[in-house]
Parts: sequence; C-alpha cells; structure tokens
Amino acid sequence: MNYQDFFAEELTRLKDEGNYRHFAELERHNGAFPAATCHNGPGEVTIWCSNDYLGMGQHPKVLDAMHEALDRTGAGAGGTRNISGTTHDHVLLEAELADLHGKEAALLFTSGYVSNWAALGTLCSRIPGLVVLSDALNHASMIEGIRHSRAQKVIWKHNDLEDLEAKLQAIPANQPKLIAFESVYSMDGDIAPIAEICDLADRYGAMTYLDEVHAVGLYGPRGGGVAEREGLMDRLTVIEGTLGKAFGVMGGYIASSAALCDFVRSFASGFIFTTALPPAVAAGAAASIRHLKESIAERQAHQDRVAEVRARLDGIGLPHIENPSHIIPVMVGDPVKCRFISDRLLADHGIYIQPINYPTVPKGTERLRITPSPVHSAEDIDRLIGALEALWTECQLARLPMAAQ
Amino acid sequence: MNYQDFFAEELTRLKDEGNYRHFAELERHNGAFPAATCHNGPGEVTIWCSNDYLGMGQHPKVLDAMHEALDRTGAGAGGTRNISGTTHDHVLLEAELADLHGKEAALLFTSGYVSNWAALGTLCSRIPGLVVLSDALNHASMIEGIRHSRAQKVIWKHNDLEDLEAKLQAIPANQPKLIAFESVYSMDGDIAPIAEICDLADRYGAMTYLDEVHAVGLYGPRGGGVAEREGLMDRLTVIEGTLGKAFGVMGGYIASSAALCDFVRSFASGFIFTTALPPAVAAGAAASIRHLKESIAERQAHQDRVAEVRARLDGIGLPHIENPSHIIPVMVGDPVKCRFISDRLLADHGIYIQPINYPTVPKGTERLRITPSPVHSAEDIDRLIGALEALWTECQLARLPMAAQ
Ligand SMILES: Cc1ncc(COP(=O)(O)O)c(C=O)c1O
Ligand SMILES: Cc1ncc(COP(=O)(O)O)c(C=O)c1O
Repeated sequence: MNYQDFFAEELTRLKDEGNYRHFAELERHNGAFPAATCHNGPGEVTIWCSNDYLGMGQHPKVLDAMHEALDRTGAGAGGTRNISGTTHDHVLLEAELADLHGKEAALLFTSGYVSNWAALGTLCSRIPGLVVLSDALNHASMIEGIRHSRAQKVIWKHNDLEDLEAKLQAIPANQPKLIAFESVYSMDGDIAPIAEICDLADRYGAMTYLDEVHAVGLYGPRGGGVAEREGLMDRLTVIEGTLGKAFGVMGGYIASSAALCDFVRSFASGFIFTTALPPAVAAGAAASIRHLKESIAERQAHQDRVAEVRARLDGIGLPHIENPSHIIPVMVGDPVKCRFISDRLLADHGIYIQPINYPTVPKGTERLRITPSPVHSAEDIDRLIGALEALWTECQLARLPMAAQ
Repeated sequence: MNYQDFFAEELTRLKDEGNYRHFAELERHNGAFPAATCHNGPGEVTIWCSNDYLGMGQHPKVLDAMHEALDRTGAGAGGTRNISGTTHDHVLLEAELADLHGKEAALLFTSGYVSNWAALGTLCSRIPGLVVLSDALNHASMIEGIRHSRAQKVIWKHNDLEDLEAKLQAIPANQPKLIAFESVYSMDGDIAPIAEICDLADRYGAMTYLDEVHAVGLYGPRGGGVAEREGLMDRLTVIEGTLGKAFGVMGGYIASSAALCDFVRSFASGFIFTTALPPAVAAGAAASIRHLKESIAERQAHQDRVAEVRARLDGIGLPHIENPSHIIPVMVGDPVKCRFISDRLLADHGIYIQPINYPTVPKGTERLRITPSPVHSAEDIDRLIGALEALWTECQLARLPMAAQ
C-alpha cells in the first residue's frame, strides 16, 4: 500500500466534498480583543466567533496572575501529577473549582476534552455493568470517552425527557446508570432541562454527568453555570467544565464528591499519564474564576450585547436560532454560501466568523455561529450588521418576514 | 447501586494493596530549580525526579517569550484550532518542530498524551485493514490510542527484533502496517534499535511511528532526539514528541509528511474538538526548541551529571539499571521499602523522589527513578548520595559486590 497516496486521496476527497478545513492564522491584540491580525488573510480583523466569551483572556487580573506565576515558579510543571507535577497552583485551583460548584472536590485535566474523555471513560468502564444514557447531541469528547469505555450505551433524543424516561424504564432497575448531557449545546445554543433530568435520575437511580463547558463563568450568580443559576448544583453527580472558554485560559475539570474525584484521579489513564498544566495556566484560570465569582458586570454586559446583536439581526430579518443562551447561530443552510459569506466577511469587511458546516452540524443547517462579548463595541456591532446585510442581499438569501416590515 | 460506596470501596482496596497515590504538592522556585517548597511535606526540598530534564522550565529565554506573548496576545487561544484558535504562535511553533525533525510538517496537540492518542487513534482506525505492531512496553497514551482505533493489534516483545520480524512475516504482505515504538523508554531508560526497526519496516512495507517524548531536546546535535543523533529521522514515518519534558513547557506534536499531518489534522477528534494551546505556551516552547537547536551546553552538562550520579551510586554499591540514557532507575524491588525510602528522603533529607511502584512498573521491580539535570549542583549530588547510603543501610537492602571493595 502506498500510504502517502492514501492520505493525499483522502484529502482530495475532503476538498471535493467541500469539507476541507482552512484555519485562519490569528494574532489577537491583547487589550484590544476582539481585534486581531489575520496573518493569512486581510490583516486587521474583528473576531466574532471566539469562545473567549467574556474577553477574560485579556483581563489584567488573569495576565498578572500568569506573569506572577511564571516569575515565581517557572514555565512548566515538569512532570505528571504523580511524579513531581502537582504544584501549589494546581491545588489552589482545584479548591477554587470545588467551591465554584459547591462540591467536595474537583479534579483538573489538561483540557475540557480530556476531562470528558478521561472521566467518562473511567466511570463507564470501571463501574461493573454500567449503562450510560447519552444525549444524542453530546460533544465529541463525551462520545469518545463513552466509546472508549465500551460500556453499554443508550442514546436518547436530544433534550427529550419522554425519550429519556422510556430508555431509563427499559433498563433493569438495579443496573448502574449514568445520564450524560450538556447544559448549553454549543452549536444551537439550546439548554437542557436540567431539573427534570435530575428528577428522572432520582426516580431511576442514575448518576448525572453535566458538561457545562459553554456555561461556566457565564451563568449563575458566581459563574457556576446553568446549574448554579437554577439552584441545581447539588443534584448533579458530576459537573464538568473548561478553563479555556469563558475563563479565557486552558484546561478542564470535573467537580463532584471527594470519593468520585479520587476514584477518577486514581484510575483515569488520561489524568495520570500526562504532564500537568503549567502552574501559570492554573494560576491564570484561578484568577479568572475568582474574579467572575465576585463580578457580575461581565455576565451582564455579555447578555446585553447578545440581546443587542439578536435585535439587530431581527431588524434586518436575518434568520437565527432562537435560544435562551448567548450563542447566535445565523442560519445560511448551504455549505457553499456559508463559506462564501465567511470569506467575504473576512476579505471585504475584516470580520472573522468561521463557517460551521457538515459534519460539525447537519447538512442543510450550515451557519455562522456568532458569539458577541462584552468587549465588542457598538461600532463593531454596526459593522457586523452592515456587512451581513450587504452579503445577504448579494447572496440572495431568504430573510424573515419581519424584514419586510 | 450505591455509587459513592462503590468509589469508597475501590479506594480502600487501592490503599490496602499499597497502590494508592499521594501527590507531593510542590512549588518550584524559579531560578533556583531543582529547589522547591513541598507544601504538604517538610518545606524546602530538592526535586530529583522531574522530567524538566534540562531545567528549561526556568530558562530566561523561555520565560521571556511567555511574558512577551502574554503581553502581546493575552492568555488563551479562545477557540479550537478551526474556530478562531489557530494563532500565529502555533504556526511558528509547528514550523520550528517540522524543522527540528527534518520533516515537511508538524501538528500540535494539547499534550504528548493527546498527540499519541489522537494520531495513533486516527491513523489506525482510518487506514482500511491496518494492523498495528506495538512494542510491549509502549506508553499508556499509545496503548489507549491503538485501543481506541479498534484496529488489529499485534504486540511484539519489547525491543526484540526477532519477535518483531516474526510478527511482520505472519501478516499478509499487502496488508497496511504500522510499527509503533519509543526511543527512550522512560522507566528502564533503555533505547530501541531504531535503525533495525526501520530496516524491518522497509522490508515488510510498514510505516513507523516513533515516540521520542523522553529524547527530544536531549539527544542529537540540535535536540531532535535519538533518531537525529543516529541520522535516522528521514527513515521514520512519524516522530512524536512532547513540549512538557526537556522543553520545559507543555504540549505535544507529531512531525511527518505534509499529507500525513494534514490527514490527522482533518480527522482526529482529539485535535479538532478542543481549545488550542495558549499562544504563550506555544511561544515558550518555540523559544526552548530554538535555544536547544543551537546550544549543546545543556545536553553536555546533562550527560555529565548523569554519569556522575551513576558513578557515585556505583561507588556505594547501589543497584541501578545500566542503560544508555539519562534515566537512572535505582532498584529497591519492594513496594513498602520503596515508599519508605521515598518518605524518609523527603522528611529527613528534603530530597523528593517519587517511588515508582506497580502498576507503573512490574511487581518486584519497584524503584526510585532519578533524573539528574544540569541544574543539580555538586552539593545536591553529595546530599543525595549520602541520604541514599544511610537509608540503604537502615533498610538493610542489598548492595552490589563492588560496594564491598
Ligand atoms: C460541549 C463541549 N465539551 C467539551 C469541550 C472541550 O473543552 P476544551 O476546549 O477545554 O478541550 C468542548 C469544546 O471544545 C465543548 O464544546
Ligand atoms: C513515552 C511517553 N509518551 C507520551 C507521554 C505523554 O506526554 P505528555 O506528558 O506531554 O502528555 C509520556 C509521559 O507523560 C511518556 O512517558
């Protein structure tokens, strides 16, 4: 077999299907984000698709903490958590996270992806006979963790309580169960009925595993996520989150009982056999969490900015998914047009919004996923709306009736 | 099922078996490493088991690059590589890595663990009918990646060319094959016969995948690893490495042909669906690599220090595995004594060496894995040898005959 030919052919196939990914090469301007230089594009751009939802990646407290930790303790951890890599900064961060979610303990991973993969992989494989009930739209990292565990898996219809209950009912009462789901789903921005899922979990004796990756920092009085906002944190067995989105740095974690965290700590290959996060990353994330526990200004401004962009989109009749979160999926519904609009936004308007095409979303639902943040100015919004309006006309894309009003 | 009881019981079982892990909580002193504070131990300690093999984690060039990047571009990348998270610093680092290994391209991951898991998982699952030939002592991250791929797997005896050839012979000639192995094995410190494995790969039409995690930065004229030292880089299909050990920061990568890297970039879930490394981490790693490409002083001092510790251990007759690498496994051969010595080193001598017990190494081969570095002083070595000698006597552990001389 000619391996190189095989790789080349597969890449050609991707390109022919229009699914080949081009990465924009960005250089964010600290202190001026969402402004950035696009090195393989038109130069100066405004980023409208970042998951640094609150701009915490440039918050002085976060940067100060990272500078301080670099000066105090150096660059890397220098080892796995077990072999010289557990630092004071990791321990402080884990305490901060446990407190954030009102749990006994928290456990850090190198990313949210690894936290899902390793925690679900370990729980689902190590609890004898466990069956995992997984929401149909769960994130790749959860799917891979579950797949890796080789546990029995039952997929329930996205956010569908009836279907979940039917599936719970069909499983023997004494079989261990875990319900895995997300709070905010990142592509549609819809939110799970967490209380009702917890009710079902109680009724059928299941554990619950909630991914709050797109909610931590953003919802709840202290940024504990949707479960905090709804007073449900104590009802969840595991809350999983990331330090790389609203908190603006990098890393992932679970928060849960001390025994569960210690269990995952002791058995998860993806936790054990890898170099720990740099202490400066842990210190930056801890500073970000601490700030967002006390300050609601960023969350408020975030929600205001999201509402404003939505209203402005409505004003020009651009179709976007109505949802109760901060994610604004503007629907194009065609992969070629979606990429075209994205390309033109970048080239002609200096606006960067990555097109979201199949396989990330179903065919026919291609979209521009817009993530407004407190650091987007009124002028940024004007330019975004103006550019979208012009391109919508140019592409002869449908508008909603209200646009005609 | 009472889940919490289950976790508690499993943890009790671990403790009863002596396999429960206690993490030392360290705070490295930047500029004075290997000195650190042990927050849950005796206070000031000297670390003797770090994988920051050269002390690059406190190199001014590395720290300057990280400070500079933080000031220039902020804390986090703010997105996955595809959605706003590819930064200029990532692109520069990938170019640096491709150059380091003389390959067309390189691809960054959030860790060495993820690079192995995602790259092997993707290659082994996506190449139809591929059979992977895996060295029996491969790292957990390789094992999990291969397992995840569900490809046909053949395990060959550790570093055993005859066995590898027999296994290659038994596979149909036209079946795609991948030989996965490491250069320096981290627990025994032995080194694979890379040239001979490449010969077999050529003869039987197999790709080669070499983990140089414990070798990059440390071997070869520019720190390209054992394959560079032996002039073999161009014979390997994939070279995998970490940025978290000798380079002193965090992250992982593969270096290979442009087509292979692009293929993994396009299909690996663990690459695609996760927040990119912070630009400052990428910048720090790139500075470390650049420095070690030009400076051989650290590698030379490292080898000298390793030779000195070995000679001193021989001088007091302490058994350690003879190997051609920088890793010094001092053999205790008993889990209780191994932990005891480690505890006493810490408590009485301020020397931190994590005990390595089963399941990380086979039962009966429990050890202290010592990693000397250029930043360990002559006085550090004196104290280490003095402390080990005292404890060896106290524990009535066997010495080698030469000690009697
Ligand atoms: C729902 C969800 N979970 C987990 C992750 C992974 O988190 P991280 O980016 O920290 O790896 C992501 C996105 O990256 C996500 O969207
Ligand atoms: C041989 C080997 N490969 C890969 C890894 C993982 O690299 P990282 O620590 O960057 O995740 C390690 C250790 O951590 C290792 O020993």
